[in-house]
Amino acid sequence: MITHETARFPRGFRCAATHCGLKKSGDDLALFASDVPGAAAAVFTRNHFPGAPVIVGRERIREGRLQAVVVNSKVSNVGTGAEGIAAARAMGRAAAEELGIDESLVIMSSTGVIGVPLPIDRIQAGLRGLSAQLGDDPLVGARGIMTTDSHPKALSCEIRGRDDTPITITLVAKGAGMVAPNMATMLAYLFTDAEVEARSLDTILRRVVDRTFNMLSVDTDTSTSDSCVMIANGRAGPVEASAFEDALLALCTRMTEVLARDGEGATRLLRVTVSGAASLADARTVARSLMESPLIKTMVHGGDPNVGRILMAVGKCVGVRVEPERVSARIGETAVVEGGRRARFDDARVREVLQGDPVDLRVDLGVGTEAARGWGCDLSHGYVDENAAYYSS
Amino acid sequence: MITHETARFPRGFRCAATHCGLKKSGDDLALFASDVPGAAAAVFTRNHFPGAPVIVGRERIREGRLQAVVVNSKVSNVGTGAEGIAAARAMGRAAAEELGIDESLVIMSSTGVIGVPLPIDRIQAGLRGLSAQLGDDPLVGARGIMTTDSHPKALSCEIRGRDDTPITITLVAKGAGMVAPNMATMLAYLFTDAEVEARSLDTILRRVVDRTFNMLSVDTDTSTSDSCVMIANGRAGPVEASAFEDALLALCTRMTEVLARDGEGATRLLRVTVSGAASLADARTVARSLMESPLIKTMVHGGDPNVGRILMAVGKCVGVRVEPERVSARIGETAVVEGGRRARFDDARVREVLQGDPVDLRVDLGVGTEAARGWGCDLSHGYVDENAAYYSS
Repeated sequence: MITHETARFPRGFRCAATHCGLKKSGDDLALFASDVPGAAAAVFTRNHFPGAPVIVGRERIREGRLQAVVVNSKVSNVGTGAEGIAAARAMGRAAAEELGIDESLVIMSSTGVIGVPLPIDRIQAGLRGLSAQLGDDPLVGARGIMTTDSHPKALSCEIRGRDDTPITITLVAKGAGMVAPNMATMLAYLFTDAEVEARSLDTILRRVVDRTFNMLSVDTDTSTSDSCVMIANGRAGPVEASAFEDALLALCTRMTEVLARDGEGATRLLRVTVSGAASLADARTVARSLMESPLIKTMVHGGDPNVGRILMAVGKCVGVRVEPERVSARIGETAVVEGGRRARFDDARVREVLQGDPVDLRVDLGVGTEAARGWGCDLSHGYVDENAAYYSS
Repeated sequence: MITHETARFPRGFRCAATHCGLKKSGDDLALFASDVPGAAAAVFTRNHFPGAPVIVGRERIREGRLQAVVVNSKVSNVGTGAEGIAAARAMGRAAAEELGIDESLVIMSSTGVIGVPLPIDRIQAGLRGLSAQLGDDPLVGARGIMTTDSHPKALSCEIRGRDDTPITITLVAKGAGMVAPNMATMLAYLFTDAEVEARSLDTILRRVVDRTFNMLSVDTDTSTSDSCVMIANGRAGPVEASAFEDALLALCTRMTEVLARDGEGATRLLRVTVSGAASLADARTVARSLMESPLIKTMVHGGDPNVGRILMAVGKCVGVRVEPERVSARIGETAVVEGGRRARFDDARVREVLQGDPVDLRVDLGVGTEAARGWGCDLSHGYVDENAAYYSS
């Protein structure tokens, strides 16, 4: 697998973005399109208050066929009732008209403030003529979907298809805050020119999302707009399913790291690996507890080896099988917990590792063979600053 | 019920505190004692890594009989193995010798950094002669058990016993960080001169703790040292059980508010009430989700009425019965969510309420009759500052 430093689109995909007046400045509307319809799959938030685009998207994905994605930032169109649903449909219709395709082939996303009406007229105006600007750079679309992200996020990779044709998978995403996906995740769009049928695409996507985006947490808050959509337009022909899934997993894992590292206020990526668990569910619960614990997150932020907090965060997982004297932990390569007790270690060395980026925290429960990984970030002043006045700013 | 602005002890209880050299300065060792043994009950943390004093305490409380409590701050004696257990016992023995009572009548607590050995020699030296300093002010003991608390915490109240004798209940506690009790709580000691037998005391204490300390969260992190111990020395005679429980509930509720308000970095108390839930478990889950959500906590900190976050935090409770269009919410007296949608409200008014203290957030799920209350605080720079370097400072 080749990973491209500079993301590029698979054959037949393009995007454009514009400023339609939702944000004070910067692009706030993005359009992604394939030149032919493709097989499609999607996973959405499990929040009880899904946004209007998620409600409409769930209907549309049933057909397993899409050609375009239209996304606005700044206003999420959540908690907006029937008017919100109508606005989401109107947004999709405007994109379909601009592209000259059927509206059932367009899926919509909106991200931003919850509970305020979507300024649909601005979005319609913004879409007019946008198809003329469709181009080859995924970062243009990535920039259009940003909210509090500090940089646009697009990755791509290349594998070989059945007949040795190069196949590309491209991933465009946003994250930053309200990120503890339970589906699903923030917004993530996957485009490929591989030929994969919708049902396999759905199976593969769910499996990969469970191991990547669903193990990401910036702040434990599950967004109402989380959506991960994948379109495979088949332009490059068939591919071996396992090679395709491996590439997708690697790509989504890398994007999960990028998203965690750019969590609101984050200054470091925290990678947690839990092994020796009695079950996969146990491994995931402990990984989540560690990466979500404010005391672990501030320990990483401060670079302060207060490793007793690791015992606390493992120990608070009440339903999990934990035998204290079997628990061990490492920060970087240094053993900091052995036999359920603080190990003797070089304080200065661990302090140095904690001040690096990423920080790797590995916990072995010593009671089984299951393992899980999770991705989080440190907790800093920046998180408080961004969220104490997000609505008003 | 009379609540005393200045806490005072029930008949027969006294306390003393001293600086024994665990902290750089300030009292770090406290002793509470009754002049006669009393009935006793206790609840402890459910963390898998309980501190050594918790392990020994669980044994001792089986007898339902105690006369004294000895507590040190700065070092928690958690994750310290057999040496830690021996140190905890030695600490209790030193207190018993100083008081001239049997060591089985003493319960111990240690709070502070996890995973470092307890300097038992300093504690033994500190206890020597301390009984001569036993006095009537609960705040002296409260000061000795503080870690990052900004002020000592003691409350007392008075009710009338069966024969009209005044009965006092006094509560001394600490909180601040690593507070999301799951038992139990931080450290809380209840003293009363009422005559209540140990079994009733246990039942009443568990019921009250479930509705108060267990619905408190500063940072979602469950401490390894959480302990709530109650001693009833019977010096004032019998009491009506229901009047006693009502008084205890009021006292613990008030202390829960005091603890939440003094959470690490907190600038405001956040009181959450959830009503109209299908079950008590649902009501508690939603209350917890609201009071623990970083985005709600920063909204309160910033005084910014980004009320869509309320929908998010209710909606992310996946197992709970939520019918979006039935959900309503108020901040203070202002309706901010109606029928699952953002209500029209006076932004400036809500901003003002959010900048006050406490902030009351009420959510009605509209699908049942169960209700629950929870107590939390805002999330500020102060939390990050205190925890980025707690171990080293």
